[in-house]
Amino acid sequence: MSFLTYLVPVAGILALVYAYNKAQWVSEQDAGDDTMKGIAEQIHNGAMAFLFAEYKVLAIFVAVVATLLAYANSGSPESSSVVALSFIAGAFISALSGFFGMKVATKANVRTTAAARHSLNQALAVSFAGGSVMGMSVVGLGLFGLGTLFIILSGVFGVDTTANLTRTLNVLTGFSMGASSIALFARVGGGIYTKAADVGADLVGKVEAGLPEDDPRNPAVIADNVGDNVGDVAGMGADLFESYIGAIIGTMVLGIGATIAGTTETTLVPVVLPLILASAGIICSIVGSYFVKVEEGGNPQVALDTGSFGAAGVMAVFTFIITKAMWPSEGISFAGTVVKAGDVGIATVIGLGVGVAVGMITSYYCSIGKAPVNGVVEQSKTGYATNIIAGLALGMESTMLPMLLIAFGVVASSQVAGLYGVAIAALGMLSTTGIQLAVDAYGPIADNAGGIAEMSHQEPHVRERTDTLDAVGNTTAAIGKGFAIASAAMTALALFAAFMQQSKLKSIDIADPMVMAGLFLGGMLPFLFSSMAMKAVGEAAMDMIEEVRRQFREIKGLKEGVPGVKPEVEKCVDISTKAAIRQMVVPGLLAVVTPVVIGFTAGPGALGGLLAGVTVSGVLLAIFMSNAGGAWDNAKKSFEGGGFTMKDGSVHKKGSDTHKAAVVGDTVGDPFKDTAGPSLNILVKLICVVALVIAPLIANGKGDDCAKDCDKATKEDCMKKGGGCKDCKEGCDKGAKKAETAVAPVAPVTPALDADIKSLRDQITNLQNRVNIVAAEANGQAQSNKNTLNQHKAAIDAHQKTLNDLANAVNAHTQQLQNIAK
Amino acid sequence: MSFLTYLVPVAGILALVYAYNKAQWVSEQDAGDDTMKGIAEQIHNGAMAFLFAEYKVLAIFVAVVATLLAYANSGSPESSSVVALSFIAGAFISALSGFFGMKVATKANVRTTAAARHSLNQALAVSFAGGSVMGMSVVGLGLFGLGTLFIILSGVFGVDTTANLTRTLNVLTGFSMGASSIALFARVGGGIYTKAADVGADLVGKVEAGLPEDDPRNPAVIADNVGDNVGDVAGMGADLFESYIGAIIGTMVLGIGATIAGTTETTLVPVVLPLILASAGIICSIVGSYFVKVEEGGNPQVALDTGSFGAAGVMAVFTFIITKAMWPSEGISFAGTVVKAGDVGIATVIGLGVGVAVGMITSYYCSIGKAPVNGVVEQSKTGYATNIIAGLALGMESTMLPMLLIAFGVVASSQVAGLYGVAIAALGMLSTTGIQLAVDAYGPIADNAGGIAEMSHQEPHVRERTDTLDAVGNTTAAIGKGFAIASAAMTALALFAAFMQQSKLKSIDIADPMVMAGLFLGGMLPFLFSSMAMKAVGEAAMDMIEEVRRQFREIKGLKEGVPGVKPEVEKCVDISTKAAIRQMVVPGLLAVVTPVVIGFTAGPGALGGLLAGVTVSGVLLAIFMSNAGGAWDNAKKSFEGGGFTMKDGSVHKKGSDTHKAAVVGDTVGDPFKDTAGPSLNILVKLICVVALVIAPLIANGKGDDCAKDCDKATKEDCMKKGGGCKDCKEGCDKGAKKAETAVAPVAPVTPALDADIKSLRDQITNLQNRVNIVAAEANGQAQSNKNTLNQHKAAIDAHQKTLNDLANAVNAHTQQLQNIAK
Repeated sequence: MSFLTYLVPVAGILALVYAYNKAQWVSEQDAGDDTMKGIAEQIHNGAMAFLFAEYKVLAIFVAVVATLLAYANSGSPESSSVVALSFIAGAFISALSGFFGMKVATKANVRTTAAARHSLNQALAVSFAGGSVMGMSVVGLGLFGLGTLFIILSGVFGVDTTANLTRTLNVLTGFSMGASSIALFARVGGGIYTKAADVGADLVGKVEAGLPEDDPRNPAVIADNVGDNVGDVAGMGADLFESYIGAIIGTMVLGIGATIAGTTETTLVPVVLPLILASAGIICSIVGSYFVKVEEGGNPQVALDTGSFGAAGVMAVFTFIITKAMWPSEGISFAGTVVKAGDVGIATVIGLGVGVAVGMITSYYCSIGKAPVNGVVEQSKTGYATNIIAGLALGMESTMLPMLLIAFGVVASSQVAGLYGVAIAALGMLSTTGIQLAVDAYGPIADNAGGIAEMSHQEPHVRERTDTLDAVGNTTAAIGKGFAIASAAMTALALFAAFMQQSKLKSIDIADPMVMAGLFLGGMLPFLFSSMAMKAVGEAAMDMIEEVRRQFREIKGLKEGVPGVKPEVEKCVDISTKAAIRQMVVPGLLAVVTPVVIGFTAGPGALGGLLAGVTVSGVLLAIFMSNAGGAWDNAKKSFEGGGFTMKDGSVHKKGSDTHKAAVVGDTVGDPFKDTAGPSLNILVKLICVVALVIAPLIANGKGDDCAKDCDKATKEDCMKKGGGCKDCKEGCDKGAKKAETAVAPVAPVTPALDADIKSLRDQITNLQNRVNIVAAEANGQAQSNKNTLNQHKAAIDAHQKTLNDLANAVNAHTQQLQNIAK
Repeated sequence: MSFLTYLVPVAGILALVYAYNKAQWVSEQDAGDDTMKGIAEQIHNGAMAFLFAEYKVLAIFVAVVATLLAYANSGSPESSSVVALSFIAGAFISALSGFFGMKVATKANVRTTAAARHSLNQALAVSFAGGSVMGMSVVGLGLFGLGTLFIILSGVFGVDTTANLTRTLNVLTGFSMGASSIALFARVGGGIYTKAADVGADLVGKVEAGLPEDDPRNPAVIADNVGDNVGDVAGMGADLFESYIGAIIGTMVLGIGATIAGTTETTLVPVVLPLILASAGIICSIVGSYFVKVEEGGNPQVALDTGSFGAAGVMAVFTFIITKAMWPSEGISFAGTVVKAGDVGIATVIGLGVGVAVGMITSYYCSIGKAPVNGVVEQSKTGYATNIIAGLALGMESTMLPMLLIAFGVVASSQVAGLYGVAIAALGMLSTTGIQLAVDAYGPIADNAGGIAEMSHQEPHVRERTDTLDAVGNTTAAIGKGFAIASAAMTALALFAAFMQQSKLKSIDIADPMVMAGLFLGGMLPFLFSSMAMKAVGEAAMDMIEEVRRQFREIKGLKEGVPGVKPEVEKCVDISTKAAIRQMVVPGLLAVVTPVVIGFTAGPGALGGLLAGVTVSGVLLAIFMSNAGGAWDNAKKSFEGGGFTMKDGSVHKKGSDTHKAAVVGDTVGDPFKDTAGPSLNILVKLICVVALVIAPLIANGKGDDCAKDCDKATKEDCMKKGGGCKDCKEGCDKGAKKAETAVAPVAPVTPALDADIKSLRDQITNLQNRVNIVAAEANGQAQSNKNTLNQHKAAIDAHQKTLNDLANAVNAHTQQLQNIAK
């Protein structure tokens, strides 16, 4: 194994050291006055309470799944029970990075407020440092964990043969499944939490009681601020963590069995490359983070763009250099596709290009002042319904360009480097996750800082500065969201390809009714999942509304602001926490259980269809919901300041009927953009990665494939092959029928295979000829020998005759001699 | 050709005779007083004006597409320019049946009102007779047209060989494309018309001016009633017409090349069967219609259910009998799958079962008093936003069971009879379209009758009777909608399979990046299309709102109801007409152009992916939008009468804030359920049928497939094969590159083929061994022979020597003897 592999955990440690330093630096900053500290502590405690409550439930889930994984894989020749440990490691590290990031984010928020009292740049520095800790923790822990685990597993199972390497990576995929499971629960749970608190704080506190935003008398306001942290910081961290790990592992798996072009010598380079690229991405992210600086009056947007786009640009160059250095000059052959070092670089650039373009489009559809959002505002004139219809139509329309771009990305990257290219393109988008996440996580910190400024009654310029940071955070988040969706789509396709390879499926034919059925079911899952998430928000919000109403009713003097009277904020925090955790379980299990059930009952083909369906419909719904939600949000914000001037010249201010219609749209958009939408990304990848983990189990004689095998082997053979293949007999009978019905008319033969078969047939003909020649030769030789023998025989006969003559002559002589003697 | 084929147009004529008689009967009924007649005439004229305006635009579209079809297919060996005539015939007949149905529906509405003055049964009889004319015109004209065209084309191109039959059916598919194109425009145009008028009438007339529903002073009220006819009667008629034709043609195409089991003799039975089954369906529908009767105080629902379910049940039995009679007893083999007569019957029953079940589920999700709608009502308590969220969540959730059922239907029907079984299942759902459509079209007639009763100030019991009929119509419509979606999904799959067959695609492998890209684009289309449809409604409604406001402002005394002052209703009718026609063009073209562009540029594989994507996402969105819209509608209606009692015991009446929230939901739902939702069904099938029509063109050497062929054939061969294959060279170069990159890593190998190759390799090894052994043996034998020969030679030489010695001795003796004798 390449010595470079050992550098991977080192790069991870580097990121962690950076994160630790930043965390220390943040801690050392001024945390402001006692009021600020008190508020910050409440937020911090609420966030931590949620995390612990969540992790308690997840621990049970992880234990159960790990046990099942260990049991199902015991004795498997292509995987191992050790996959359970990989799963636990992935889950643990995902949880740990969420914990670190949250811990620092809830420290950075109040320190950002304090820094904003001095200057914009100081406030940016603190909030971005907080975000950096999240970003670097995620990539650092992820790469350290994954790299170390790969080195250990390589030692245990070996990477010397393709079979051993396959087994090593099959076991490694558990890590990705662990990360994805935690991510889904964190996103769904966090999304429910934040929206329940938000709706409660807004509907009762702001609308019914008439309090301003972030007023300390509002019992749900702390829960609302906690929600920003658990939803946006921890949820997004877990999200990008699993994308990052998924893209790396998907690419590694697709590197199995590659050979140096022109030889039959297998090479580990494409397996190790993703880890090395990710390591380089960490360096780029760290370097990029030093460029995030702004002068007073400057635009933080420019600073953040310089940092993140700069890092991505440098990374693209790095990819060319690293690949050039590692890749054999003759290229690497992936089952016949020869990929040169430069092709890998091009695939990375394609991925980055598509990611940025999708991000820009998402941002266009959601930005204040742009045509789409203005359209929604205009439609608010005629009321609630037209505002809603306009937002829904906008969300649906906004799927067009991203889907075209993703389709282009898939075709283009596979043209240059096959399916490995698609995986590399996804990885290209995610390699600088460190700084991207830092930029994303900075947003909610700035948002929180604003809330704390309000609650602690700071001077107006403080709030202005935090608002500047917050506004930039929203734009950045919009781009980041598009980026996340595009990378999720590409990662899902890479995982899909990896699943096919590991489950030994050679094709997934849509015309096969089982695949069709899988496609329909898969397409339905994101709809069902979104419905569950939205209902969960609705129910949790109901609980919160009741509680806030109760407090205003029962706590005397609260609404009026009598000094010393405080709301029972912990109760609201508690309600959000409990509701979020209760409601996250079913949608989370849906994602894990469905692929397992389909895979084991309907076989890998149907599961492949399911993955395709869930990817297409999940990505579409994610774009639709995120953009509709984002547009509604900014349509509402368009009324802020001096109001919005319509095309007909009329000006509509905050508080007008038009604005009220926009507020309704925003409320509808909340669960769209903050709960269901972002969870769908994870849903898609989690289902793909669960399929990948169970791939060796379902490929190994179970279900559909077993039945297929029966066409050539007898039932006994089938039963001998896989210990777990209990339903072998039924499978065989069904298989035989299927071969008659479904398989026969399909029979896909590629030209390459065709050529192969033709060459085999030619070889047979040649051999047959050769046998004939040999036989003929042998025959000829034998004939010639026979002739010689006959000649010999004739000679011997002639001799015998001569001998007889001679003997007669001698006898005659003897007679004569006797006569003479007489 | 079977003589039975000639019965098909006869069955069509039978339906037309029935429709004509019913139409005559309706005309003879009392049309009420002069006010009623006047209103009815306005509605009739408005509807006819819309139809003519629409047909004028469609005539241009049909002419252009027909010219293109004729040009593209000229000289094609697998199709013919005649396909353009099929296309025109399909379009013309679709338009004609819409015209007939509409003519009678706009006569039946006022006569229903008049009949309702006497009894419920009389009102039911008139309205159902009106619906029957629509239903029977559709199936009669459809089957007469299709049957006649098939007989003519069979004569021209022959059905004697598989190649000729393929060509005949390729030309016939143009009929389906004509029907589907008109259907899409009719649905989209009608949907925009009805909703623009509805919103205009409601928002300005009812809300702003405070007039009651259907008040004659409201300028948009006639347009609103016209909308019910053009949207629900003509639109739905065109919709079911194209489903009906699509299912029949899809099944016919899948019957090509079938052989009598155990022989190589091809049979026409599976090609002709769909036509015969459809003919039988007409008989069943006519018989069923005689059972639609109700006593005063009785439930019209029971009467309608008896009629439609009764017809479907009888049809299922008929299918078994007809198939048994026509089908060869040894069964028919579809590329290896042997299908018995009983299997076809079972597939029909599966289709009917799935259709009814999906219909029931749709109805459950949309019905007043059931848990889902009550949930939406409960959520209206907390305002507009929660009502909207609840409706959206309900719509998404409601996709689950239908998708499971459709997936089950696909797998089950293909298990019994392969892909032909899937097509037969779709046909099973649609064979009794005659009565189903009669039941569906009866709804808007009853609705219109209510409107006329209101506008002409009838006694309350008249309106009560029409309301009873209308309420039943809504339930029936809900079931019918689910039925339509399920049948659309199955028909789309049948068309998809037919497309694969005609484009000579052996498989559509999702792992092929082109297919993946197609899947993504296809999934996106329904979103884009829905967005366009919803925006179109918004813009058209805006124009209408402005016009109604203008009339109330400028026409003195209108609002106050000064006798003799009348609104300018024609202006509103004109605005709806123009807006609908202007806005229907782009979404309509999108559906026709996209598959053509993708097919010719990216090849049949990518187009196959597109079809799969559009089917999955289209069906999902259709269910989501229809059910969400239906639920919002009935959530609003739940407040009627005594108000709605919530779970907490509070009663919310009409006009309460809760009711207002529900009204907003209903307005959002309008374009969902009446414009975008139902159009999606047609979109999916139209795209599939366009693909089917162009299949011979893109299969014949153009695009992807040409490139694939080049791997085995030389470029010259490729160019010889298809006259239309102009870009053969580029295709070949691309193809060669593709084989290197994309095809190779995928390499789809079936287990059977795998076994084949393995056995060939084994044979070679054995032969090699055998040759070696034989050669070695021959070699060894030769050596041993040589040795023996040498030994012989040595012995002979030794003998020679002895002989020489002996001869010398004898000579010596002879000398001695001579000496002695001397």
